Amino acid sequence: MLQAAHQAGSVGLMQPWRFIRITDHGLRRKIHQLVEQERHLTAAALQQRQDEFMRLKVEGILECAELLIVALPDQREQHIFGRRTLPEMDVASAACAIQNLWLASRAEGLGMGWVSLFDPDALALLLAMPKGSRPIAIICLGHVAEFYPRPMLEMENWTTSRPLSDMVFENGWSDDS
Amino acid sequence: MLQAAHQAGSVGLMQPWRFIRITDHGLRRKIHQLVEQERHLTAAALQQRQDEFMRLKVEGILECAELLIVALPDQREQHIFGRRTLPEMDVASAACAIQNLWLASRAEGLGMGWVSLFDPDALALLLAMPKGSRPIAIICLGHVAEFYPRPMLEMENWTTSRPLSDMVFENGWSDDS
Repeated sequence: MLQAAHQAGSVGLMQPWRFIRITDHGLRRKIHQLVEQERHLTAAALQQRQDEFMRLKVEGILECAELLIVALPDQREQHIFGRRTLPEMDVASAACAIQNLWLASRAEGLGMGWVSLFDPDALALLLAMPKGSRPIAIICLGHVAEFYPRPMLEMENWTTSRPLSDMVFENGWSDDS
Repeated sequence: MLQAAHQAGSVGLMQPWRFIRITDHGLRRKIHQLVEQERHLTAAALQQRQDEFMRLKVEGILECAELLIVALPDQREQHIFGRRTLPEMDVASAACAIQNLWLASRAEGLGMGWVSLFDPDALALLLAMPKGSRPIAIICLGHVAEFYPRPMLEMENWTTSRPLSDMVFENGWSDDS
């Protein structure tokens, strides 16, 4: 399935994805702690929705079969092709790889979750990542009891999704929302 | 195919993608001019590889069947869920949607190109986009004479791709490159 991720196109053929498999249980627990910390900080930042947020399931780090970290490598500033005015194309390319992994997982009947509730500097330190690299995803992968029929955040009444028709304009911006 | 894009997961169900179809030919030509400008600026930034870069085909804006702009909407700062420490998750979610579009296109036998050679502020101005929104992709979509058997940038000897084995570490960083 990582091969599917690795097939993604990337800006200037930069391939700005690194995958760190977490097979050490002590390390997994430390990563879980980092996410728990950020879960509380995010809840505090959400103010009046704090309690509601804390009731949501946001990760399966301790119980998933495979835990992966996806990170952008260091020395990305060498890659100018397609990034001179849009430096964030490195994140975009890595996200394309992760989306491939997501679809490949689903095709194999596995569930995947992308957790972004963590302090990237703390996680980089924990994994001895070089200066300039940046973790962008904690990926939980494995069998799940069932798939949600609709987005979980909608089922839990956190928010509602908007139809595609709201997202498509012609020849310019025309957002009435 | 936009429906496939719109099926992507997104951070906090934010759905941070807007699609602007370019059906006006004058507008298409202006977008092409913006990309030509940035192509020259990128070439200059690449210094000794300038001439080599200018020989690469980097877009099909004038000839593609469908031209789309993908943009992040304004007021993204309202979305804290999953973005407090990683604000770039909006770009990541929009890239997941674009990757879905890419795969859906290929499944229909169509070619797709993601062009990031443009000044986002100039393009936002041209499309009357609201302050705070940001275009991240010019998408060229349509029938192509043939698909490249390998990445074009590799076939043109611009760069070489690295194998997946270089990208996978265990429990920490171990990049020897």
